[in-house]
Amino acid sequence: MPLFPDPPATLQELAPRWAHFCLGVQRFVEEELGARLRGKTLLIAFSGGLDSTALLACFSFLAPRLDAALRAVHLDHGLRAASADDAAHCRAVCEAFGVPLHEACEEVAALAAREKLGIEDAGRRARLALYERVRRETGAAFVLLGHQLDELAEDQVMRLMRGAGWPELGGMPAIDPERALLRPLLLTPKAELRAFAQYLDVPWREDESNADQAFLRNRVRARMLPLLVEENPSYLEAAARLWRLARLDQGHLAGLMADHEAHALSDGESLLLSRASLDALHPSLRLRLCKRALERLGPGQARMDNLLDLERAYAEGRIGAAVRFPGDKEALVTREGIAFGRVRREGG
Amino acid sequence: MPLFPDPPATLQELAPRWAHFCLGVQRFVEEELGARLRGKTLLIAFSGGLDSTALLACFSFLAPRLDAALRAVHLDHGLRAASADDAAHCRAVCEAFGVPLHEACEEVAALAAREKLGIEDAGRRARLALYERVRRETGAAFVLLGHQLDELAEDQVMRLMRGAGWPELGGMPAIDPERALLRPLLLTPKAELRAFAQYLDVPWREDESNADQAFLRNRVRARMLPLLVEENPSYLEAAARLWRLARLDQGHLAGLMADHEAHALSDGESLLLSRASLDALHPSLRLRLCKRALERLGPGQARMDNLLDLERAYAEGRIGAAVRFPGDKEALVTREGIAFGRVRREGG
Repeated sequence: MPLFPDPPATLQELAPRWAHFCLGVQRFVEEELGARLRGKTLLIAFSGGLDSTALLACFSFLAPRLDAALRAVHLDHGLRAASADDAAHCRAVCEAFGVPLHEACEEVAALAAREKLGIEDAGRRARLALYERVRRETGAAFVLLGHQLDELAEDQVMRLMRGAGWPELGGMPAIDPERALLRPLLLTPKAELRAFAQYLDVPWREDESNADQAFLRNRVRARMLPLLVEENPSYLEAAARLWRLARLDQGHLAGLMADHEAHALSDGESLLLSRASLDALHPSLRLRLCKRALERLGPGQARMDNLLDLERAYAEGRIGAAVRFPGDKEALVTREGIAFGRVRREGG
Repeated sequence: MPLFPDPPATLQELAPRWAHFCLGVQRFVEEELGARLRGKTLLIAFSGGLDSTALLACFSFLAPRLDAALRAVHLDHGLRAASADDAAHCRAVCEAFGVPLHEACEEVAALAAREKLGIEDAGRRARLALYERVRRETGAAFVLLGHQLDELAEDQVMRLMRGAGWPELGGMPAIDPERALLRPLLLTPKAELRAFAQYLDVPWREDESNADQAFLRNRVRARMLPLLVEENPSYLEAAARLWRLARLDQGHLAGLMADHEAHALSDGESLLLSRASLDALHPSLRLRLCKRALERLGPGQARMDNLLDLERAYAEGRIGAAVRFPGDKEALVTREGIAFGRVRREGG
């Protein structure tokens, strides 16, 4: 006996509201994000939870229109008692939608201990590594992730909390060409996904770790978002607008900096932004050009306070002033401009 | 018998920590905000609460260095049973610091009823009107307001909640040249002001309305800020950095738009942004240029969703598309560009 009745097979079989919903997702991805999906293989990151279930369903209806081949990938985290059940559930859902499923298992708790990571971080890293491996094996153009608008709003609040700057405050990107990631549902409220799954009569698994208040995201979800929505019932729409504005500004800033970035002198290990470049820029751009320079040197996110310190040291002409950044990176104000490099650990 | 012992009369009499604190406020106002205070008359908006008491004290020590004349102004709101006591308290504190006090009384509840405003709005309007009147009468260069960093952080959260864009999300300005307002303590935490007032042994009045959960600001203060600070004990510093970044960006954006603003064709009632201007701009700036155009037409804040709608209509070339904005304003996409004007009320 099947877990649930056969879902509709085509967009035309859906009620108008839900056909419209799927077409809206397609428009968002193709028109707003500019992602080219036609004729491509798309890999759905499938946990069996509500969001990725809605994502799988939505793209199963869109795939014929897009002439796209759909595949799914599931990581069994080996964490929860229900992990194996989750995997069986994922198999049944993918079968019902006719989507081939790639499965793997990783003991995330062991990975976390080995790499000295939090469980959440270890899980994210294991998933992304698997997704990328399967994406290459299947020749998929993108990995599709199920993040939705409620999560975007939570992400914005967490970024505010941590002191992110702008446009980072706008939240996670919906398209990441470097890592071939796509978040087609990023501006769709979770309530909409629930209604869609209920309409289709497709079941999903609840992840009990979502209720665990040890995780910051869950505390934000349980304690902050409800307050924001209580004060402004249209809060999720406001979050989507903020994301759109940040995306516009991201593109604008990148364009304004492109020439100056290209003129940075780099030998791979270090990088120099010349006074000619820096002095031509408004401090607002100078600060972000320094941020980009630091990103090019490797991992470790430059914090706004350090960037503001550096900007002030440069503006005040303090030759020799050095500012340290996470990831053992350093910026030094010199006569030539600002030199970025890695700090050598002493006694190493 | 005096209410409290005579405060120190000069900066030199203060403990080094507090002399340093006062000089930091001066540096913020003169160097970071670029306000010219030397030889000027400064008018302190004085409620008798902690913030404005610290402001009054701080500037009483700075005034001789600045060669500035200090005055204070207090509005009795006629609202709370304690209003008259507050006024007497203000008189005593101003006398102790040797600062002339201008007093006025207004029945804010009656004003609110008459003008159909909330009590908070009516109070703010009455205060600002009084401050401006006394500022003109005394020839003061600025009205100094007591807003501090905790309030800035609250303001940012309220703006996030309401769906503000960027750089508006950075919070209230510290200098408003048009209205001659200055907020010298905007990046100073309230805890610092409390310690300063306690050090000086100067008393302040608690405003019980601050505890009233009927006011959004108080709900944000009581429910949201503690969560943010609990997750990030340096949250107030992050709020200050966000404000600084927004201020940088504000200046940058204003500079990028200045030429295009100057080219807007206006007859006072309506305004046209030409295609030549609009097409030369990145959508990120186009959107803000439209926002500025709407602001020039009169009161009513343009919302981000409407601005994004307008930007989309323009980008898609939908001639004839109209977008309504608060304050009975309208933007119309035409062959010539975007025309902004007031909507005539039908049947009026």
